[in-house]
Amino acid sequence: MKRIIGVIGGKRTEKSLLKEAEEAGRLIAQNGATLVSGGLGGVMEAASKGAKAGGGLTVGILPQNDAKEANQFIDIPIVTGLGIGRNVIIARTADALIAVGGEYGTLSEIAFALQMGKPVAGIKTWDIKGVIPAENAADAIDKILAALA
Amino acid sequence: MKRIIGVIGGKRTEKSLLKEAEEAGRLIAQNGATLVSGGLGGVMEAASKGAKAGGGLTVGILPQNDAKEANQFIDIPIVTGLGIGRNVIIARTADALIAVGGEYGTLSEIAFALQMGKPVAGIKTWDIKGVIPAENAADAIDKILAALA
Amino acid sequence: MKRIIGVIGGKRTEKSLLKEAEEAGRLIAQNGATLVSGGLGGVMEAASKGAKAGGGLTVGILPQNDAKEANQFIDIPIVTGLGIGRNVIIARTADALIAVGGEYGTLSEIAFALQMGKPVAGIKTWDIKGVIPAENAADAIDKILAALA
Amino acid sequence: MKRIIGVIGGKRTEKSLLKEAEEAGRLIAQNGATLVSGGLGGVMEAASKGAKAGGGLTVGILPQNDAKEANQFIDIPIVTGLGIGRNVIIARTADALIAVGGEYGTLSEIAFALQMGKPVAGIKTWDIKGVIPAENAADAIDKILAALA
Repeated sequence: MKRIIGVIGGKRTEKSLLKEAEEAGRLIAQNGATLVSGGLGGVMEAASKGAKAGGGLTVGILPQNDAKEANQFIDIPIVTGLGIGRNVIIARTADALIAVGGEYGTLSEIAFALQMGKPVAGIKTWDIKGVIPAENAADAIDKILAALA
Repeated sequence: MKRIIGVIGGKRTEKSLLKEAEEAGRLIAQNGATLVSGGLGGVMEAASKGAKAGGGLTVGILPQNDAKEANQFIDIPIVTGLGIGRNVIIARTADALIAVGGEYGTLSEIAFALQMGKPVAGIKTWDIKGVIPAENAADAIDKILAALA
Repeated sequence: MKRIIGVIGGKRTEKSLLKEAEEAGRLIAQNGATLVSGGLGGVMEAASKGAKAGGGLTVGILPQNDAKEANQFIDIPIVTGLGIGRNVIIARTADALIAVGGEYGTLSEIAFALQMGKPVAGIKTWDIKGVIPAENAADAIDKILAALA
Repeated sequence: MKRIIGVIGGKRTEKSLLKEAEEAGRLIAQNGATLVSGGLGGVMEAASKGAKAGGGLTVGILPQNDAKEANQFIDIPIVTGLGIGRNVIIARTADALIAVGGEYGTLSEIAFALQMGKPVAGIKTWDIKGVIPAENAADAIDKILAALA
């Protein structure tokens, strides 16, 4: 099976972070991995856009009841109906996470992934012990792939 | 987005039903749809094998905590950690279901899908009002596609 | 710990069945058990009303995000935010279930409970192998308590 | 309905924090609220012990499939089978949380509660914006009750 790498972050995010999310998605695809995200807007959409530009496959773990809430770059919408309870599935499904900015929802995903012992790289995100700080998308990918190797 | 069609059924199933499940998977793929299933053995594995033979993509919504429990024909393992609570996600993610045999777990998925108003075709499965009876895989696909049209 | 017995059934139900649900709740309380239900209206509310009249404790496993959706007879609202995905928790939490009428949601709960090997008594509900048919609330309680003994 | 207040924290915790958890449980009960926790050992057990000593009611939202995993002070075991995915239900069910120490699981619960806009008081726990720092159990209860008023 291919590796699955997650990009997590908020719906409302500053432009510079959206650029990093898009670049992270592109690099995930170019490294032969599948992208998983929460499937909505903001960082999730930017990363999915990047992954599609990089020729990759995108999975969106959606909170509500309808595949139509997925952003336009999601290939595989997983419709959970579990609300933010779906965050644990993003952490479980990913082999590693890249957090880009983000609010409390992102923090819950970081917490779950670290509890599961998975590598989490962070770009301008929560300062939590265990998160690997990264300068930008390229740095985050390098560090994640090294941690998974 | 591509259609997503689910095949549901038990881990322990008689051979003739595994053949129908495999054929259903192949037809789902050949009709341009993605296959979703519970990702484990028996009917789930047979359908996934068929979908891969048909050139399709396979998603497995797994109950436990490890992608390794997926059968060898799953492209995208969604690792939920929710136990049989994951059954509701199979029903939510699929546009329609084909039930092949099956025990109580399959019955819970049929119930959820019918509650959501989704077409469910059944091959030698639970006799529940709302399930569209089908002779075999080809008949089930025809009826599902007609219901979705 | 006290026994926990669930009463399941639909939001819209005919009067005669609401009477049975109320009586089932009363008998559960009078037999020293705690009542669990989905916490909403119809059968769930009638059973909770009966349990309070019988001096018992009532737990409601709610689908949405707000305790306010609980009916007025719920002592302990468990707010899941999981939608109908919460049905599996009702089955897991109860030692046994009494199904009173009910539509597809009730069927999913019956299926889960039977999969878990728990006794399910049914009053004018789905005709599923494994469900113990009961004439009325008193009969259902007798059969459930015998099965749990 | 009575208020429901949660005490969250780890299974393995230093003695001084267990004392604070027990005191928090006692004060929650004495203030007329129901205690909710994850239902297992450590901080969860200490808080439940305190709540029972204070004459209160204790709810445990359990991760696995069996009520027997609940600690001996749990009155109402809610058996989810959702693994750590149950953390979101603890946050949803509580009107407010008191975090006592804790590792990544506790962090996920803090994150969810803050995302839901609920007051979270913290005793020697994660330093997250939005958490109200408290010296000890009495201070935490005071601050939580003030925030809920």
